[in-house]
Amino acid sequence: MPYYIGDVIKESKRLVIRTPEEFKKTGIDARVKTNVESIDAQKGLLYLSDGSNLPYDYLVMATGADAVRLDIPGKDLEGVYVIRNLMDTLKIKSYLNEGGCKKAVLIGGGYIGMEMCEALRNVGVDVKVIDILPRPACRWDPEFSKLIVEELGKNQVEFLPETKPLSIEKGKECRLKLITSNGELDADMVMMGVGTRYNTALAQSMGIEMGQSGAIKVDFHQKTSREGIWAVGDCCEVFHKVARRWVYFPLGDIANKQGRVAGQNVGGAPVEFPGIVGAQAFKVFNLEVAATGLTEEEAVKYGFEPVSSLIWGLPIGRPMATGEKLGIKLVGDKKTGKLLGGQCIGMKGAVQRVSALSIALWSGLTVDELGYVDLPYAPPFGGAWDAIHIAAQDLVRKL
Amino acid sequence: MPYYIGDVIKESKRLVIRTPEEFKKTGIDARVKTNVESIDAQKGLLYLSDGSNLPYDYLVMATGADAVRLDIPGKDLEGVYVIRNLMDTLKIKSYLNEGGCKKAVLIGGGYIGMEMCEALRNVGVDVKVIDILPRPACRWDPEFSKLIVEELGKNQVEFLPETKPLSIEKGKECRLKLITSNGELDADMVMMGVGTRYNTALAQSMGIEMGQSGAIKVDFHQKTSREGIWAVGDCCEVFHKVARRWVYFPLGDIANKQGRVAGQNVGGAPVEFPGIVGAQAFKVFNLEVAATGLTEEEAVKYGFEPVSSLIWGLPIGRPMATGEKLGIKLVGDKKTGKLLGGQCIGMKGAVQRVSALSIALWSGLTVDELGYVDLPYAPPFGGAWDAIHIAAQDLVRKL
Repeated sequence: MPYYIGDVIKESKRLVIRTPEEFKKTGIDARVKTNVESIDAQKGLLYLSDGSNLPYDYLVMATGADAVRLDIPGKDLEGVYVIRNLMDTLKIKSYLNEGGCKKAVLIGGGYIGMEMCEALRNVGVDVKVIDILPRPACRWDPEFSKLIVEELGKNQVEFLPETKPLSIEKGKECRLKLITSNGELDADMVMMGVGTRYNTALAQSMGIEMGQSGAIKVDFHQKTSREGIWAVGDCCEVFHKVARRWVYFPLGDIANKQGRVAGQNVGGAPVEFPGIVGAQAFKVFNLEVAATGLTEEEAVKYGFEPVSSLIWGLPIGRPMATGEKLGIKLVGDKKTGKLLGGQCIGMKGAVQRVSALSIALWSGLTVDELGYVDLPYAPPFGGAWDAIHIAAQDLVRKL
Repeated sequence: MPYYIGDVIKESKRLVIRTPEEFKKTGIDARVKTNVESIDAQKGLLYLSDGSNLPYDYLVMATGADAVRLDIPGKDLEGVYVIRNLMDTLKIKSYLNEGGCKKAVLIGGGYIGMEMCEALRNVGVDVKVIDILPRPACRWDPEFSKLIVEELGKNQVEFLPETKPLSIEKGKECRLKLITSNGELDADMVMMGVGTRYNTALAQSMGIEMGQSGAIKVDFHQKTSREGIWAVGDCCEVFHKVARRWVYFPLGDIANKQGRVAGQNVGGAPVEFPGIVGAQAFKVFNLEVAATGLTEEEAVKYGFEPVSSLIWGLPIGRPMATGEKLGIKLVGDKKTGKLLGGQCIGMKGAVQRVSALSIALWSGLTVDELGYVDLPYAPPFGGAWDAIHIAAQDLVRKL
């Protein structure tokens, strides 16, 4: 019988999503609100926080990652949050429902910051985003970040660049006061969205090998270095098909796929997880922001000779356009002519383009070929020459 | 100096889009409103309708295609239209602007019919669509056609299936009366959208070889069988990468690409046009309808062993969904496991999926691999398992 053991999360608590009874119906012995305290890999035995132990033949580690909580004074004050799991969300929601939360400061202009500022504005909270970097969404080109800052501004969200959080105190006008390198900010809520860190302590305690990134090393079957032990999701690495190496890339869709692959393999159906190309997206108010593959900096790091091109096109046919903008940046490799990465931003059609670019990367297409690929054309959805073609042909001239 | 000669179109007229003076500025001697009456390929000489002639070293045939006008009594009455070029559009527009056009009947439930019924409804015209086939958009699955008929109905457009137009007469209540196999229909305007036919008369007169489809045979450089003569667009064939053969596929984006390729080759830069995968899309009111690759019928015809799967998924993440539907049908080859085709329908995200599927077809991906491809995931744009993954995995189980 397969066992399911609640994720080891930082708070040593686990929200019950399904009851053990519900799990039992599907043939799974679920131990929720239960931590694995230690593992005896020789005996194949788990020691649980409820004092019991469980034997195993196969073990799948899905210990995930934690949201990083900046180690600054006041980090644990009431009203200071990270957001990682359902429990975090419920805490934040109940804090908001109590009322009186009028101002929030989000630390970090990444995914969490961008998505939360929209969510908080939607419930009428005044929002500021601060970042130690000069711009939000740094994975994207500076021109695109500029558009994001504009979009934030249109929605009354102020972005404060190069602003380092120093400490959090109880406030007077608001419940909290965030002291930064650029002055003080009043806030009823401070949310930290400054990255995640894999949970690998259990795996390390068993001598399982870690990869270069520091996360658990796995193979294409999701096997760890230790026979019978598998790892999936945000605690382990994944193969990046464009970078041609194992990387740490903690995204939910990847975790889902790895889980499925590990499950099939454990169940006796050998399946390989081919890897990723780095596809990712977020929405901030009315902007779609998406990227795939490598940035120029990553490409250099991985031994490519990147050349890039950024164009502003249209997400729909010119005769139908009414001022929509679509930015596409492509990165190609001078040595091989291959596409290395792409990013896209716009009110519509950005994710559509990055979906197509992701499969182009997956398949190892050259930029030249991308300039002629066959895409579904109709004026409501693009030009006869799609923005992808125009961007690719522009890049071809530089390669 | 390159010469540009106005398209030979059915009406032997050509609308002046740019003046010859404007063309001259770009170094092109443009002869608009001028037909090529005949060609002496031995001498390399064109005989023009204005009585003059023009010598050439290289000739690019871009003679296009005409809209088919059904050969039924009354086909040339005032108020009976086909739509193919700008001239047609202006005629229709001026007819509408005259006023009094309250009812239109569109013959044919293909692209023209679907796109025109939206355009006509937008200006308040009552619209019926008739087709000799049992459903509109027959290239798509019957389940998808059903959704299209529903969408037409929501927008007060009636679709009359299995209805053959027999003749058109002057009407009493309306200006015209269309007699069909299913009774009479009053109409102020009758529009025929029943397909196109390539213009190959000139090419044939020169002994240029035609392909199996009947359109001009070209190679990957857009060269015809006759040295120094090239053909591009709706008058010639194109290589279908999935079907692995030359087909007739008269779409605007393909014509654009072929024109560019021919131009580069004539100019001395050898470029190949890799071909198409059959990507296509249209919008009908609030529905996106898109397809790529082969249908099952086409796949059988081309020697594949097609297996298909149709699923209804979501265009966005489940927690954000509010009733949106996204239909995906995939066709795979039992022998090779390769993806052969895909089609998609929905209020949003259909074109997005078909863009991705088109590049998958372009690259020869297997259905198995498609079940794991890396796509940009965020809840506003799809699930962690995108509808593409779900459809592919469903199909894998059948292959």
